[in-house]
Amino acid sequence: MFHELEVSSKKRFELIDITYEVERIVRESGVREGICLVYAPHATAAVVANEHEAGLVQDIIEKVRELVPPGAGYLHDRIDDNAHAHIASAIIGSARTFPVRDGRLVRGTWQNIFLLEMDGPRSRRRILVEVLGA
Amino acid sequence: MFHELEVSSKKRFELIDITYEVERIVRESGVREGICLVYAPHATAAVVANEHEAGLVQDIIEKVRELVPPGAGYLHDRIDDNAHAHIASAIIGSARTFPVRDGRLVRGTWQNIFLLEMDGPRSRRRILVEVLGA
Amino acid sequence: MFHELEVSSKKRFELIDITYEVERIVRESGVREGICLVYAPHATAAVVANEHEAGLVQDIIEKVRELVPPGAGYLHDRIDDNAHAHIASAIIGSARTFPVRDGRLVRGTWQNIFLLEMDGPRSRRRILVEVLGA
Repeated sequence: MFHELEVSSKKRFELIDITYEVERIVRESGVREGICLVYAPHATAAVVANEHEAGLVQDIIEKVRELVPPGAGYLHDRIDDNAHAHIASAIIGSARTFPVRDGRLVRGTWQNIFLLEMDGPRSRRRILVEVLGA
Repeated sequence: MFHELEVSSKKRFELIDITYEVERIVRESGVREGICLVYAPHATAAVVANEHEAGLVQDIIEKVRELVPPGAGYLHDRIDDNAHAHIASAIIGSARTFPVRDGRLVRGTWQNIFLLEMDGPRSRRRILVEVLGA
Repeated sequence: MFHELEVSSKKRFELIDITYEVERIVRESGVREGICLVYAPHATAAVVANEHEAGLVQDIIEKVRELVPPGAGYLHDRIDDNAHAHIASAIIGSARTFPVRDGRLVRGTWQNIFLLEMDGPRSRRRILVEVLGA
């Protein structure tokens, strides 16, 4: 079962919490046992799971920005200005997979699900949520 | 099919090898063809695959500690002291997926499966092992 | 359904595009709805998805080389010379999972699929492509 989410970002870097939409999609899928693949078909964003605490959200963004700083002389920036976002997306990954058990998405208490925008603002970022199982 | 492992960590950073438990779970699942999702429902740990060689285990820990050093002025550390572990968990990921073929988990000769503890010591770290397929 | 690809690398670091082989395997699998797991059973390589633009390919390699530089005094290098590749493989991951929908692999316009070689040149790097679903 597939469901598409669409989110907007307001800043260049942003963590957008999609936990409750993903949980609802899993519940409504009718799948009791399987997996949920949260997939962003974008090369300048990523999908991550962690705690939704305002300070930490900022910490994660700052660390990604520090490890792969925007505008640091990348070759790809000759034809665009978002090489940093491409590189970080390749390393971090544009998807995360979660177990589905007893009809619910399994995650830890401190694991919310986020789209990590690294080349915003964008008006239409898509996330494909697939629930596979029986 | 789901099976829960529980491991203890003794140090702040530690790689805990769970390869043989995961392989046993796959064999006993009866699944011949599918996938095995090794999922840690924790926001300060990760799951990784690589060679179990004592020097390399230390190298991986040192690199993670260098890339996201503990106590480096993170906002989240105002309310806790483990922001480094959260950030690294978000980037590395708290799960890995392996093929299951002919009733066995597929991995390379030098790919053991580890829980990467980054906020230990902890007495009860859970790992959910799901085998999906037929 | 499983299919094995085999690729050769010519340099120490190299991104090898396997998108079209993986797409063909998915089409020929007959699976209409499911997932495709692209798995490298190697501890010194990784699988990533991003844009196939020559400058960016070089940028990704340079960033990985900068974050985990070869020969930087690793313990594992006492018995081999590829600790950097092991460490980066553990962090980045040796697999990526893609949705399969309407019989086709789902990816973004700018998401090609690559084997990231970090310990080449190698004559036989294997990639296991598994298509799971119905």
